[in-house]
Amino acid sequence: MSTGVYSATGLFVCFEGGEGAGKSTQAKLLHDHLVELGREVVLTFEPGDTEVGRKVREIVLSPETGELAHETEALLYAADKAEHLRRVVRPALERGAVVITDRYVDSSLAYQGAGRALDADDLETMLRWATGDLRPHLTVLLDLEPSHGLTRFEERDRIEGEPLEFHRRVREEFLELAGRDPEHYLVQDAHGEVEEIAAKIRARVEELL
Amino acid sequence: MSTGVYSATGLFVCFEGGEGAGKSTQAKLLHDHLVELGREVVLTFEPGDTEVGRKVREIVLSPETGELAHETEALLYAADKAEHLRRVVRPALERGAVVITDRYVDSSLAYQGAGRALDADDLETMLRWATGDLRPHLTVLLDLEPSHGLTRFEERDRIEGEPLEFHRRVREEFLELAGRDPEHYLVQDAHGEVEEIAAKIRARVEELL
Repeated sequence: MSTGVYSATGLFVCFEGGEGAGKSTQAKLLHDHLVELGREVVLTFEPGDTEVGRKVREIVLSPETGELAHETEALLYAADKAEHLRRVVRPALERGAVVITDRYVDSSLAYQGAGRALDADDLETMLRWATGDLRPHLTVLLDLEPSHGLTRFEERDRIEGEPLEFHRRVREEFLELAGRDPEHYLVQDAHGEVEEIAAKIRARVEELL
Repeated sequence: MSTGVYSATGLFVCFEGGEGAGKSTQAKLLHDHLVELGREVVLTFEPGDTEVGRKVREIVLSPETGELAHETEALLYAADKAEHLRRVVRPALERGAVVITDRYVDSSLAYQGAGRALDADDLETMLRWATGDLRPHLTVLLDLEPSHGLTRFEERDRIEGEPLEFHRRVREEFLELAGRDPEHYLVQDAHGEVEEIAAKIRARVEELL
């Protein structure tokens, strides 16, 4: 597996973690802080933040879709990522912006790889191709025991509705990915005060500006 | 690149070629002939012959979709193939049926690889993963000069609407793929009488029954 490509311009920050870990809250707080510092900041997410991505999101998350082959699901997520990378992430980095994304490649490695038990190397090869192997300068992993994060069952989408054991494999994989490359990860316990967590994230990101 | 997997049961026949070469007509004639011989025959196509495939087909072929990153397009086609292979093709082969598909992996190698100029090896790795590397026992390539096959411009979908030069690269790639593995291909000039062409295809397929 290659060691990845890092944008020479801009700053690429990714939030990862299970359901209910506070990714979107923390991403928004970081966004607001960096805007106050006068930076151009693009706050985005996967899946679904492009026109084709919205259609793909509808397919992969709607409970009406029912069962999909695991490879189909992984390829649909990868299609969303390929479009998102080329239409949103890379253009913003090239003009020097900070890009903050709620989920990226690690989510697919965790949910489709560990969660669905697809071969990790094959899946990673496919995802790296889809995203031109571009890696975040920093991934903030908000770590939470899955039973603390999941919403009530009647509100769950196709992925959230998977059993707790699935979500535990996902959590283990996120931690494993972070452990392999500590230079590019901040692993943050997601229990605790929102503002305290936000301060730790800000401190780490400011080292990179 | 691996040499592929061939189903030990059933017979997997694929029709490939450019627009207007008569693939669906010939696939239907072969289907009817084999049904008359008393075989179970599944006549199918890509993209779009599963529930999720219909949604993907709408995205990749509708002119309203506009521009897609080449990788996005390739991954969407691959998602359709992954689902089609596991829901339709493989189950039918496993019960001993003849499966006749109008388009398969070669179409993506030709349209997204040669047509869109994506790296051929990376693309093939991704497509072989999507389809479990299952190959047709026979691919019938209906070969036609593109200017003879394309429909009138106002009726063209996203792919048909590409310039003639695109379709010439597609044709060259189909011929190249067939040339590499003559044992598993029948290259048939698509000019000429429908019934004469059908007879040649029947003769080759009957050798395999």
